[in-house]
This record gives sequence, structure tokens and C-alpha cells, in this order.
Amino acid sequence: MGQGSSALHRKPPSAANYTSETGRDRVVEASLTMVRERAMLKAESVRRAGGAKATSCLLGVPLGHNSSFLQGPAFAPPRIREAIWCDSTNSTTEAGVELKDPRILTDAGDVPVQELRDCNVDDVLLMKTISDAVAVVMQEKPLRPLVLGGDHSISYPSIRAVTEVLGGPVDILHFDAHPDLYDAFEGNKYSHASSFARIMEEKRAHRLLQVGIRSINKEGRDQAARFNVELFEMRHYTEHRAYLENLELGKDCKGVYVSIDVDVLDPSYAPGVSHLEPGGLSFRDVMNVLQSLKGEIVGGDVVEFNPQRDTVDGMTAMVAAKLVRELTAKMSVL
Amino acid sequence: MGQGSSALHRKPPSAANYTSETGRDRVVEASLTMVRERAMLKAESVRRAGGAKATSCLLGVPLGHNSSFLQGPAFAPPRIREAIWCDSTNSTTEAGVELKDPRILTDAGDVPVQELRDCNVDDVLLMKTISDAVAVVMQEKPLRPLVLGGDHSISYPSIRAVTEVLGGPVDILHFDAHPDLYDAFEGNKYSHASSFARIMEEKRAHRLLQVGIRSINKEGRDQAARFNVELFEMRHYTEHRAYLENLELGKDCKGVYVSIDVDVLDPSYAPGVSHLEPGGLSFRDVMNVLQSLKGEIVGGDVVEFNPQRDTVDGMTAMVAAKLVRELTAKMSVL
Amino acid sequence: MGQGSSALHRKPPSAANYTSETGRDRVVEASLTMVRERAMLKAESVRRAGGAKATSCLLGVPLGHNSSFLQGPAFAPPRIREAIWCDSTNSTTEAGVELKDPRILTDAGDVPVQELRDCNVDDVLLMKTISDAVAVVMQEKPLRPLVLGGDHSISYPSIRAVTEVLGGPVDILHFDAHPDLYDAFEGNKYSHASSFARIMEEKRAHRLLQVGIRSINKEGRDQAARFNVELFEMRHYTEHRAYLENLELGKDCKGVYVSIDVDVLDPSYAPGVSHLEPGGLSFRDVMNVLQSLKGEIVGGDVVEFNPQRDTVDGMTAMVAAKLVRELTAKMSVL
Amino acid sequence: MGQGSSALHRKPPSAANYTSETGRDRVVEASLTMVRERAMLKAESVRRAGGAKATSCLLGVPLGHNSSFLQGPAFAPPRIREAIWCDSTNSTTEAGVELKDPRILTDAGDVPVQELRDCNVDDVLLMKTISDAVAVVMQEKPLRPLVLGGDHSISYPSIRAVTEVLGGPVDILHFDAHPDLYDAFEGNKYSHASSFARIMEEKRAHRLLQVGIRSINKEGRDQAARFNVELFEMRHYTEHRAYLENLELGKDCKGVYVSIDVDVLDPSYAPGVSHLEPGGLSFRDVMNVLQSLKGEIVGGDVVEFNPQRDTVDGMTAMVAAKLVRELTAKMSVL
Amino acid sequence: MGQGSSALHRKPPSAANYTSETGRDRVVEASLTMVRERAMLKAESVRRAGGAKATSCLLGVPLGHNSSFLQGPAFAPPRIREAIWCDSTNSTTEAGVELKDPRILTDAGDVPVQELRDCNVDDVLLMKTISDAVAVVMQEKPLRPLVLGGDHSISYPSIRAVTEVLGGPVDILHFDAHPDLYDAFEGNKYSHASSFARIMEEKRAHRLLQVGIRSINKEGRDQAARFNVELFEMRHYTEHRAYLENLELGKDCKGVYVSIDVDVLDPSYAPGVSHLEPGGLSFRDVMNVLQSLKGEIVGGDVVEFNPQRDTVDGMTAMVAAKLVRELTAKMSVL
Amino acid sequence: MGQGSSALHRKPPSAANYTSETGRDRVVEASLTMVRERAMLKAESVRRAGGAKATSCLLGVPLGHNSSFLQGPAFAPPRIREAIWCDSTNSTTEAGVELKDPRILTDAGDVPVQELRDCNVDDVLLMKTISDAVAVVMQEKPLRPLVLGGDHSISYPSIRAVTEVLGGPVDILHFDAHPDLYDAFEGNKYSHASSFARIMEEKRAHRLLQVGIRSINKEGRDQAARFNVELFEMRHYTEHRAYLENLELGKDCKGVYVSIDVDVLDPSYAPGVSHLEPGGLSFRDVMNVLQSLKGEIVGGDVVEFNPQRDTVDGMTAMVAAKLVRELTAKMSVL
Repeated sequence: MGQGSSALHRKPPSAANYTSETGRDRVVEASLTMVRERAMLKAESVRRAGGAKATSCLLGVPLGHNSSFLQGPAFAPPRIREAIWCDSTNSTTEAGVELKDPRILTDAGDVPVQELRDCNVDDVLLMKTISDAVAVVMQEKPLRPLVLGGDHSISYPSIRAVTEVLGGPVDILHFDAHPDLYDAFEGNKYSHASSFARIMEEKRAHRLLQVGIRSINKEGRDQAARFNVELFEMRHYTEHRAYLENLELGKDCKGVYVSIDVDVLDPSYAPGVSHLEPGGLSFRDVMNVLQSLKGEIVGGDVVEFNPQRDTVDGMTAMVAAKLVRELTAKMSVL
Repeated sequence: MGQGSSALHRKPPSAANYTSETGRDRVVEASLTMVRERAMLKAESVRRAGGAKATSCLLGVPLGHNSSFLQGPAFAPPRIREAIWCDSTNSTTEAGVELKDPRILTDAGDVPVQELRDCNVDDVLLMKTISDAVAVVMQEKPLRPLVLGGDHSISYPSIRAVTEVLGGPVDILHFDAHPDLYDAFEGNKYSHASSFARIMEEKRAHRLLQVGIRSINKEGRDQAARFNVELFEMRHYTEHRAYLENLELGKDCKGVYVSIDVDVLDPSYAPGVSHLEPGGLSFRDVMNVLQSLKGEIVGGDVVEFNPQRDTVDGMTAMVAAKLVRELTAKMSVL
Repeated sequence: MGQGSSALHRKPPSAANYTSETGRDRVVEASLTMVRERAMLKAESVRRAGGAKATSCLLGVPLGHNSSFLQGPAFAPPRIREAIWCDSTNSTTEAGVELKDPRILTDAGDVPVQELRDCNVDDVLLMKTISDAVAVVMQEKPLRPLVLGGDHSISYPSIRAVTEVLGGPVDILHFDAHPDLYDAFEGNKYSHASSFARIMEEKRAHRLLQVGIRSINKEGRDQAARFNVELFEMRHYTEHRAYLENLELGKDCKGVYVSIDVDVLDPSYAPGVSHLEPGGLSFRDVMNVLQSLKGEIVGGDVVEFNPQRDTVDGMTAMVAAKLVRELTAKMSVL
Repeated sequence: MGQGSSALHRKPPSAANYTSETGRDRVVEASLTMVRERAMLKAESVRRAGGAKATSCLLGVPLGHNSSFLQGPAFAPPRIREAIWCDSTNSTTEAGVELKDPRILTDAGDVPVQELRDCNVDDVLLMKTISDAVAVVMQEKPLRPLVLGGDHSISYPSIRAVTEVLGGPVDILHFDAHPDLYDAFEGNKYSHASSFARIMEEKRAHRLLQVGIRSINKEGRDQAARFNVELFEMRHYTEHRAYLENLELGKDCKGVYVSIDVDVLDPSYAPGVSHLEPGGLSFRDVMNVLQSLKGEIVGGDVVEFNPQRDTVDGMTAMVAAKLVRELTAKMSVL
Repeated sequence: MGQGSSALHRKPPSAANYTSETGRDRVVEASLTMVRERAMLKAESVRRAGGAKATSCLLGVPLGHNSSFLQGPAFAPPRIREAIWCDSTNSTTEAGVELKDPRILTDAGDVPVQELRDCNVDDVLLMKTISDAVAVVMQEKPLRPLVLGGDHSISYPSIRAVTEVLGGPVDILHFDAHPDLYDAFEGNKYSHASSFARIMEEKRAHRLLQVGIRSINKEGRDQAARFNVELFEMRHYTEHRAYLENLELGKDCKGVYVSIDVDVLDPSYAPGVSHLEPGGLSFRDVMNVLQSLKGEIVGGDVVEFNPQRDTVDGMTAMVAAKLVRELTAKMSVL
Repeated sequence: MGQGSSALHRKPPSAANYTSETGRDRVVEASLTMVRERAMLKAESVRRAGGAKATSCLLGVPLGHNSSFLQGPAFAPPRIREAIWCDSTNSTTEAGVELKDPRILTDAGDVPVQELRDCNVDDVLLMKTISDAVAVVMQEKPLRPLVLGGDHSISYPSIRAVTEVLGGPVDILHFDAHPDLYDAFEGNKYSHASSFARIMEEKRAHRLLQVGIRSINKEGRDQAARFNVELFEMRHYTEHRAYLENLELGKDCKGVYVSIDVDVLDPSYAPGVSHLEPGGLSFRDVMNVLQSLKGEIVGGDVVEFNPQRDTVDGMTAMVAAKLVRELTAKMSVL
């Protein structure tokens, strides 16, 4: 148990060899129905309130088994929600946007990842189901998906759905300590370390900016060169700061997708992650880039928060929640 | 955030005043569909494997808001499942029953409590939905419900469903530090401190044995007397031990229901609970009563494990999981 | 118990309905006598040593019940004192001022807040008693009060006493994540979130500079405008830095009062606070403002350190202690 | 700071060489006045309520500097009080005595140990002041002192006061892992390891029963033999159990004094102590001895709880508080 | 890092493909020289002191890579030594044996396991080197080996050396939650879960008593039957207690070897282990068996303490140290 | 135990008065043989791989007893090695140097400090043995020593060996919160607070640059002036930054020695140190100085990491390991 556990990594054994394909597909369908009903209900509320051009909608994806090291991010979504509404802070962003306004923040609940896997859903079907769930949210105007990971493997199905529904590539602003560009990691094409290789192969990014990189090996550099990734490494951050704190993105494409891996922050700011990589950004550094960003944000995710590594008082949960809160306000347009 | 948070206690604000009743009912229906599909799929597996007279089926109820003090038990079900299959131990019970056998242990997933509440489902409807979900599981022969709490308020809808489906009262073996017999607690009829008052009023118990009691005030004693509860208090446990380690229950009624509040254990054995009440049973004491119990177990629950108070290495998760493992094997009959 | 406890919030029950008013007043008087005797004794020492124009004098106010969320700051004063003299560091400030010199640092002990409340002292009388204690310290020349919180509600009675004894308003340099300007919080006029509303209403501030603000809602902004508060928000800190690192205060009024809420620091620097608000100042940022400040400091406080949320090795205790140490040296004049 | 700190051990430096003797004596007098006023106020309440023959009165002694290893017990009294009234449990004992009844439990606050030491009060005068404070409580009928340590050195001044006020020796029931019978420990006659040597030399015990002993060296055994101490060692506890669970004490002397060192419990039950000595009693074992005890309890103490070593959720605080709660009910007579 | 790390599991990469066999053998020889010189030096001291028939000699084996789950036991030996001499307790056993007497306790240091593996020593050669080191200690009369693990795989080379030097099998008293009888675990013949299979195959045990077993699957039961292992399972401990607390072993063979896996204790007593298996013995239960044991102890080990899972204050380190202290005194004969 | 323990501080008692001088010298010789064999084996590998002008070689010195406050750094070397190869990160530096290449990083194991002290080796002989071990490593071309502390006292014997082997002084780049220039600390000439006094007295530094200083008293300033130390204090870091991020050292002397005390970092970045001194450098600040440094690095050390104060997930271990990784790449030349 605990940090050493790989219980989530393996498929729970009980139903393994006895499950029918039809039954499995009924469970997948019921899962999407659950997301659809909630998104529909929430979108109705927003439309009734009136005046919203875009409203962010949380969608939890409690998936941890595509991580190479620890699976704790599977437990993150309910903890992030708890922290968003925690009594210890108020309900406005730093700039004064009110999160209790249903036109700013809605929630479509979780894709039931553990239940699906327990019913013999393999990774290909699981990734498809996540994409379908993101698309389901986008069908309810004016909702825009803000996915709560889970590990970073979920960015691929999320961005796939966003670009397919919008009909073209997007600019991706990707905060991370790692480029996640491995062709495959330990044989896993859907690994959390490979998601951006999939995205680039399928030409879903008009531009890919990776900010905060400080753990990248030869394969990573080769892949970045091959895909024309714009790397903003920590060891040269002083030089890049001015450019990044005045970004304008989303032109000549379908908009901006913001993907925030919590480990872009230095471990002192966010100890609750699987990969402690010293030398990262401060929380304020991330705020400065995000708050100054110009462009229409059509989707986003906050991933890799690992509650099993957090402090007892949930410091990283508060950090992940504030990233979600500020990104939510940035996505929603009244 | 953390232990001091009462974020779960309040209804998340966003959808509050804009939600339609029809939409809410569609979400409730989708939730029950999800449980039904999974239970059906698992029951098919069991029947295909053949030879099972009774098979326990986990049903998670991540509900914490009826607690008077802390709401952490809402996070328990996924942590208990992780610990059940943890690599640090093998997959048999102490007596050698194999848990990987689908005829011993199945899982119908969770009732999506947070999603329901976020869609304006109030407590009366929520309790009804939990009862319905338990009934849904029982409809799939030979499944028998083993509910994973959540706080202790969930025993009431669970036992209500079991006795309604079976058509009469059951003997209840209730392990707990507290009698949970308040008429209402802080005005809440569905409080985790009132569940057994509801059960007794509705005459759902043929006998109610409460084992491990060590925090009971005058109202508790009065209610216990009024309902003919059999109290086995810790301060007299030495005298009761022999009787309790040779129990036979379930005669002249519909069977036995076993409800285990993790705080029946001394806090040294189970620190991950909301109410640290020193002077409880050892883990072996509980095993001795449970393993020697004679009678047909028709349902059960393991409640009040609070992961937000557990040790960093998840000691109480392992304890809760072992309680589930041993109870599972006791419930299932080949 | 622990973080979830609100035991301090309520008046302990035992003496409640049987206490006489005369008895209560005798206890208040005895409390002030205790502070007076210690302040007098210490001032005698300073005068005997000779040559001090101003000497800081610690006064602990272990009060936590005016907090909306957690009451842990009530346990802070003895932990701060322990950390000030901790063997892990030496006894000089960064600039070389020797703290063992009695002319630099004295201590008048604690106002016995819990004892007073247990004897039926209500909040109006309690606030008056705290003001009286601060005044008692100021009567012993050359002592100047450095109050150790406790939650932020104590700044109001402290500043009230300072401005009354000095006979006019002061400039207030207020470090905090929050403006604490609510008219009342959850109905409490003396809430830790309302102290600066009281101070401004009574015109006790010549200027009020609030540094580090990053959690402020509409009411906060309205109150700040109404009272001409100078807000230095974190989201614009880059622009404000140069001004704040060259401050001169206390002109055209009775001097400078420095109030430091430990949560002005980012939670990575000070996890031991009730309100984890990511995106704050670094410890060095605070030092830069404080060490460069010009002006006569006539009083101060360090508040909201919550030992129940600190790391096991007391990192925040060391942070709070160093804030006290550096402020002490700044206040004392040889 | 933290566990490694010995800041409390040394006299804080500031006032050291400049303090006058007269000033010091004024501070001692003010301290006793504070205790006297509170005890008087509470005793009035009890007498007004009527019908009490004996009422326990808490007196905190936050003293840690006489410990050989860690000084954390100095922080215990406020944490024990917080836990006594913690919302996580109710306000009755296991047998149903109501603690909110002022005739059962009163509180005279703390002897301000740190303040006294900071004003140049040495150990001889400090011990005298503690004795005086205990006597002050006893003067207010029907109060009986229940001292909250602090380390075990405080049992000596407490028992000295009790036997002097009553005019003769008492039976002492002493729960502990260690006999605390060293003639002096590291040269300190007032060490927490020497308190019972002082008590026995001055013939203040009619009988001394030491229960739970499991760390005793040759000097300890020699002293025990010399003073006719009745040792009940853990390695023979199985044989002693029946005798200890049917004790009758206090005959042919002035009554019974119960001294409970929290480390009598196995570290699994009480990790928050300075001396982790595996192999101790369970919490229920202590309850069994205490609840069955016959005799008039004239005073008592609960010592050596060290909050700096407790779990983050305060398990040992709850343990210490329950020991106080049960002992309180045992001492008070209606 | 931390609990999730498997860094120890893999051979450190740097020297891998470039290391010569001659160089490797020189490093092995230097390691044994280091053990030999220390054992010789200590044995000389014992002989000079005179009068010892048998003296226990600690030998650390910091080996964790044969564990299936976590490798932390590799860090145990220096932590156990620190706890043996910790200032928080005295230097005698419960029965009064003085550990500072060099005739009771000596120490030959550690086999440098990590250094050996880093120099291309494989598991066959490593196990041989551990056996050689145990034999080296036994050559220095009157030293007897008390091996500090490390994981349980080290019992095999230790018992192999003891039985080879003594020329025949021994009775083995084995405390453990698990039987460690797998033929191989995950393909590893030297796994910590297989050590007793190796021992039994090579007929090194005259009798093997396994006490505290509570995690045993079908293969375990089959192997136990095949090798005539005497199982004392926790679920029947009440019945076995009297027999085990009056053991006499070592007759008709070369003596007794005591192997204590710390996880025989319930996790509440020893949380610092890799495998948390609820329902184990109390510390006193183990003491009762060990202190009453009759027979000549010719060797022993204390294994599977995992400091990376211990509490912050090292409770399990104190438990492991006390097991070593009491076993040491039992082994040494004056 | 735990943080409060001073067990390492004292010489373990057992062998004290009975040890012969010849035996002690044999143990010292065996220790150096162990280091020599490993260094020789690794150097052979490097030379066989070919093309290396300089290769860093780790040498662990697990020494904590010369610390004034806590001795935990004695446990650091194995934890740093575990973190260097931890699965949570890859095996290249930030600039892409591959650490698995044996020409970049080798390891000669540990000087067995505890074993030596247990065999009556006093501090003079111990310091000599450490110097000898460093010299032994340097004799194997092209190895250069990178010493893993242990406390800061080990920099003296390390630099002594480096300057003696090279035949002249070096430039020392010293990162630290403290100057470590006391003539003696608490009477100990070899204290971790005195190492640089020894180095300067013996004229082993051509220049000594101390970066990050923020705890320095009058004696420290006097010594710095006497020895012409170049102080770069934190309170003036803004002014020094540009100079320090463009350093060129090692001219007109034998090269550069880099000594990194982990406590140069702010405690938020490195909580696992004995001396928590708020207001330090960020991890990136240190990287900026180190990565831009020009000059030939002939030796170095990373000291004062205290695993007993680290977070449960080993954040500071990862920080110390990354410092070693980046310094290693800087030292090695292909």
C-alpha cells in the first residue's frame, strides 16, 4: 500500500476472464450517459443564467496506471474539488472573478476510470472513452472542458477530442518539468511520458510551447527537434521570462489549450507530485505567464497532482486548486 | 484544506439555484444504471464460473457529509480497494480463501454521491438512491452487498434495502465505539450518529448487538434501553469475551448483517478515523469474534475509515481492507 | 482533536453559568498584575544596563477563537519563544545585532487568554484587557510592544493601545495575504478578518500599506477604496518591488507600526498557517522590505503562526522567530 | 528547534544578570495570586451549585526543563485541555459521569513556569511555588488538585503539598515505565527521574505501588528495595493482573494519590512521549486498574505527554485527555 | 525517491560492463578482511575482560534488493545501532543485564553489501560472502553471530554458516507474519520470501517453529506440510500461547537459532516494516516467548525493519533495538 | 531516538577500555584497503573505456558527531546514492551529460566512520584516515574526489588531502548559510563550525568565496576579516548576483574546490538539514552560479544533508542528489 503500491497498475483480478464484451460496452455507455446528463444539466443552468460566451466545465479523469513510477494521481480529482471550495479561502480569483457564478465554473463529474478498467476495458477503449467524454461536454454550449487528472497520459485523448470537435489544430501552452515526448515509455505508447509524442504525430498542435523543462535526455531533445517543439528550459529561464510573460497565442488556429503538469513547480511549492525535480518555477512565475496570456482558451488540464505524496495539510491540493481556479476564470467569457 | 476543511459538508455552490428537477432525476437514473450494469456484468461472470451460492459484492458509498466532525470518509472507497489488492500481501484470507476467485469477491463500483449532491439531490433522495443501489445489487443473484463507507449514516439505507428485499428483519452485529442511537444529531436525522435510531424505529433488527462501545452518554443509554439493544461495553469486555467469541446469529429472522465501524478498534490499531476514542478492541479481538461467528451473512458494511487521518503509509487502509477481505470470505458460500 | 478541533472556539463549559462578575474582574486584575510585574522587572534591568532609547518587549497573546477556520494560533507564543533561542542558530540578527543584550529584547510573558475566557470574560472585555496589557508595557520606559499572536484579531486592541498612549495615529506597514477589512466576518465584529476595518473606522492609521495581498473579494476592494488603503497586490509585485524596498514611513504621525501575518509568505516558506494561499512572498522579499525600512517603529506584531499545521521539525516556528528577531532589532535603539 | 531543541533547558538569556530579587518575588506573588483568584472563583461556582463532597480541579504545570532527554512536556497542558473538550467525543466518562457539571471538573489554569524562570526563579524556588499553588487550590473546598504536567519532576512538589496540607502520608498508585528513583540524575536532584526518591526520603508515601515498570537498572532496584517500593514489572504482569484489577488503597493514611506517567502505555498507544519504551500496558489495562480502584483519591497528576512527539492528529493528546477525564470522575464525589 | 523507489533493486549502472573479475575478488577479500579485523579486535577485548562463555556479536547486513515490495531494510543496521544506545533509555535489559559489559555485546560492523554489488558481485557470490562473514565472526571465540538485517533473505546464508561451522542442524524459532517458504518468488530463488525453503531443502533445521503466521497461501501450506514445519498461526494463538511461553529447544541438535522478522508484531507496534499485516503479536507477547525460552542460542537475526516506513520519531527503530537488546542478553553467557 | 538522540555523539561503550592499539591500526588499514580496491577497480574501468581527462569519484564519509546540534548527516551517503539513481528521474544532467557513462561518475564507497570510532579511533586519527582515503582516490588517475558528507567537518580533511596531493592551494567556492570559521566550537577544534578556520590557518585556500551567508556573529566577522574571506551575504544578494553568475576561478593556483552545504538553500527547498535558517538561496540560484562557473574543478563535497529531518518522500534527498549530479558533470572532462 501507500507510495510503494502498484495495485492500481494491474487490472483488478476478479472479473478478468469471465467478462463478456457486450456487458463491457453497456458499462462504457452508462459511463458516458452519466457524464452527458450532468453536462446537460449544468449547461441548462448556465443558459438560464444567461450572458455566457464560454464557461469552463470540470471533468475529472482519475487515471494513474499509465505512470511509470507512482499511481497516486488517480486519487486527485475529488481532492482538488474539495480544495477549490475550501473554507480557508474566498471564492474569487486574484483579479476578482467570482467562482460561485455558474457561468464561470461548472462540473460534469468524473469519468469512472477504475470502474471501466475493472470491467475489462483496455487502454485503447479507455482512451477513446475519455475522448468521447470530453466531446460530450463540448456538445453542451457554452461549456469548455477543463480536465482534472490523473496522470499526464490524459492530455492526449483530451486534446484529440478538442481538435476533432473544433476541426483543426490548436496552440498548446504546456507547463512541465518533462517534455513527455518519448515515442513509448517502457513499451507503453499511452504512457504519461509519451502523450505529447502522440499529439505531435497526429499534428494536433499548431505550436507547442513547453515551459519549465529541466529533465530531458537525448531522445527528448531529438523528438523536440523533430516536432519543432519550442523548449523553454529552466536553465535559461532568466532569458525567456520577458517573452513568456507577454504571450499571445491561438492565432491562425482553433485557439489555445493550456496543459499544466503540477511538477512544473519547484518541489518546494508542490511536494505532492510523483516526480520531485528540483529547480522549477515558483507559483508566482506560473501566475505571471498565465495571467498575462492573450488568446481564446478552448480547453485545458491540470495533471499529475499526487495526493499520496502531499503534506498532511494538503498544500499541493491548494496549489492545484488555485491553478484550476485561475485557469477557469481565464477560460470563461461573459 | 486538510483536516479542518468542511468543503464537503456544504453543497458546492455553482449549480445551486439553476438546476431543474427533471435534470436531477435523469442524473439519479444514470447513476443507478451505472451500478446496475456493473452488478449485472459481474453476476454473469459468477454464474458462468458456477457453483456459488452467495458471492459478496462491494458497493462504494463515498459519503462524508453526515458526519458531525470530519468528512474524510468520503474519500475511503478507492483507498480500500487499492489496499485490498496491494502487492504487500497475498490474495488469500487467513483461513486460505482465494479472493481472486470471482465467486468470492465482486465489485459494483461506487454510488456517485458527490456528483448527485452537486446536482441538487437532497438527503432524502440521496438515502433513497443508496437504498435503490443496494437493492439493484441484490437483484443480481447470487450477489450480496458489502457496502464500503463513507460515514456510518450509510448503514441505515443499506439495512433498509436488505430487509425490504428479504422481507423481514435481520440480526445485526454492530462493531463500534459509539452506539449511533441519537434521535437526531445537531438537528440531522440522517446523521452518522443517528443511523441505528432509524433502524430500530423501523423494526429492521431482530437483535442488535453493539460490541466495543466506550463513548455513550445518557441519551445513548436511554435509547439502548428503549430499543432493547444488547450493549457489550469495553469496560466489561473481559466478562463478555467468551460469549462473543462463540456467537450464533440469524436464527428466527432473515439472516445476519455485520456492520463494522473501524473506530471499534483502539486508535493505535486504526488511527485513520475521525473519532479517536482510546481503549478499543485489538484487531485480533475483532477477528476472533468474526471468524468464529455462525450464521448466514446477508449483507454488511465497513465504514468510517478516514484516509485524511491515516498514517503516511496507509496503516488504517490496510486494516480496513483486511476487515473487508475477511468479511467477504465469510459472506460468500461455494 | 488536532486540526479539525474547534474546542478553543467554544467557551469551555464547566464554569459557565455559575460565575460571579466580581470574581471575573478579580481574575482580570490578577492577569494585568502579572504582566505589569514582569514588564516592570524587565524595564528595571534595561535601565540598569543603560543607554537604551527604545527596547522591544515581547507580549504573547495566545488567542485563536476569532479565526474563521482554525484556532491553532492560540498555541503559537511559547513555540516562537522556543525557536528564538533555539540552539540550531546563533543569537545575532543578519546585520549583527546581539539579541542576548537585554536592551534589545525583553519579554513580559503572556496575557492569559484561555484562563480569562474560562472565567466568563467575553470578547469586549477580552479586547479591552489586551489593550490594557499593551498599555501596561508601554508605561515602562523604554519598552515598546512586540505582540506575538495569536490570530490577527489581536492587531486591533494592540494598535488601539499604541495610538491611545502615543496620542495619535501611526503609519501601518501590514504584511498579509488578506486585507482583513471585512466589516464583520460570519457576524463577528472582532474576527481576525475584520481587525483592520475596526482600525480604519477609528482613524488609527495615518497611512495603511498592505503588502502581499492575493485573496481579496469585492467587499475587500470596496472597503480598501473607502478607507484609502494602499494595496500592494502580489499579481503586480514586480512593479511595486522597487518602491517597497526603499520605504520611509512614520512622518507626520506618531511613528510606524509593523504588523506581519505569517501567511504573507508563500506556503512553501511558511506551511504552518491556517490559510494556505499559494503565490506569496519569499522570506527574502519580506527581509528586503523590512531591513531597508526607514522610520521609528513604535510597536508591532507577528501573528497567525499555527503550530498545529507546521512541519514536524518546526520550519514555520523558525520563520516566525526570525521575523520576530529581525523586527526586534529594528525596533530597539541604543 | 523541534525535537532536537534544548532551548527550554537553558534559562533564556535576556534578563539574566540584571534582575533584582525583589522584582523576582513580586512576580512569584503575582503568579500565585492568579491561581488563587481562579481557584476561588471556581470553588464559589461549585459551592453555589451545591452537593459536592469533592471536586477535581485541574492545575497545569508546563515544566519540561527537568527532563534528561526532551523538554516537550512543557507544551502539554493547553493541548490536554483542548482534547478534553474536543468535538470528536462526548462529555461523559465511560461510566456516564457528566464532565460539564462544574461539581465534577474545574480548572485553576497554569502555574506560569516559563515566565517565572525568565524572571530568575531558580529550581528550589520554582518547586516551592508549585507546592504553594497546589496548596492554594486545596484551600478552596471542595477542590482537589489534578495536576497536568509537565515532566514527572512535578509529582514531588505536588505530593509534598498534598501531604503537608492533609498532615500525613498517602498511598501512591504510580503508573510508569520507569521507577524515577535515582538519587540524582546527571547531577539534578529535581530531575524527572528522581522525583520518587525525594518523596520516599521525606516519607510522604504510606505505600508506593509502581505499575508497568520495564526500564530499571541496578540503582533503581537498590533504591526500590531501600524504600520498600512495591514493583509491578511488565515482564511479570500476567501474574500481577488479578491483584491490580482489585485494588483497595488509602486505608491507615490520608488517602490515595494517583500519578500517571503517560509512558506507562506501550508506545503504540501513546507515541507522544519522550521515552519510547516498547512492551507497555494497553490503554484498557490502565482503565481496568483505575476503574476498579477502591479508596478516596485526594490528588493526582497526569505527566510526560510530549506534544512535539505526538501524531499529526493528536492521538496521544486524546489518550492523555481520557486519562484525565476518567481520573477526574474518580476523584470527584457528589 | 522515498517509498516508491526501486533504486536499490537494480545494479547501479556506472561500473557495469567494464569491471574485471580479479578486481571484484579483491574487493570481496577486502570486505571480509574488514569484518575479520573488527571481530578479532572485539574478541580480544572479551577474552581480556575474562569469564565469558558466549558473547553475542552484531553483524550488519544492509541488504534490501531481494525484497519483492520495498527495499528500505537496506538502511536498517545503522539506525538499529543508534537506537540501542539511545539516551532515551538506560543500558540494561528488562531483567537487569548490563549491555555496556563487552562480554555481553560486541559489534563486528557491516558486510558492505552496496559496495559489493556496485563492484559486479552477483547474488550467488553475495550470499557466499555473507556466509563467509558469519563464519569469520564464529571463528573468534566466544563470539556468536546476531545478524542485523536487511531483508529476510539473509537468514539463509546466516543459518547456512552457523550449521556448517557447528557441523549439524539447529532448532529454529522463527517469528514472522509470513512463512517465507516459496520455492521462488517472482523467479528469485534468493528472495526474502524463499529463505526458509532453501534452509529446509538443505536440512539445516532440526525443528522449524514458525510463530505469528497470518499471511499464508496454498503454496505456503503445501511447503509447510512437505517440510514438517510447525505452524503457530495467529488465528489460533489463544490455544498455542501456553505452549509457546514455556518452550525448551536445542536438544538433540546443535542449539537454537532465533530469527525475528519485525513484522511478526502487529503494525500498531511496528509500523516501520514493508508488509503491514494487521492482527499480529503484541511486543509483550514476543517478550513472553523469548524471555521464557530454555536452550542454548547459537545464533540469531532481527530482520525486515524498514526505516523508510517508520514514524518520524523512530518508534520501530526502538522496537527493533529492544528485540536485539533482549536477544543479545539471552545469547551471551557469563 | 529520532531527532533528539545523541547516540552518535558518544563513543559506543562496549569496546571502550579493552581495545589494543595494534588492533585499532589493523582496522584503519583494512578500511583504507577497502577504499583503495574500489577506487582501483573503478579507475581501471574508466581507463578501459578511454578518453577521460577527469572523472568524478564519489567517496562517502558518514560522519555526524562533530555537529553541535544534530548528528543525522551520518546517515546521508546511502540516501544520496539511492536518490541519484532513483526511477523518478532520468540519468542525464540538465545540459544533457549522461551519468551512466563510467567516465563521468564513479564511486569508491564509504569510509567506515562508525566502525572506526567503535574501534577506539579518536578524532585526530579519524581526520587523518579521511585525508588518506581522499588521497587514495586521487592516486587512481583520472579520478577526482567528490565527497558525500556527513557534516561540514569533513571539508577540512578533504581539502587538506587535495591541496597536499596537488602541491598547493586552491580557490574554494563555498555555499553555506554559515561561515564555519569559529576557532573552536564548544571546545571542538574539528567541529563542523570550525572547518574553514583550520583550512585558512593552514593557507590551503588561494581565495575563499562564501556564498549565501545569513547567520554570522561577531567572531565570524572577525575571522572572515582576518583571513580575507570574500563574504557574499544573503541580505545583499541582489547586488552580488551578476558577479556570482559569471565567475571564473582557479587561476594562479591548483584549481577550484566546490563545497556545498545543503543549508545554503532556503529551508523551503531543503528542509532536511540540521540548521533551518530562513532566507536562503533558491535551488535555481545555486544552479545559476554552478552552471556558469568557469575553471578546473579538482575536488568537491556536498554536506549537511540530514535524512532524519527530511520530508517523508525524501525531497531533500532529491535536492542533494541533483547537486551531486550537476557537480559531477562539471568536474568530469572527456
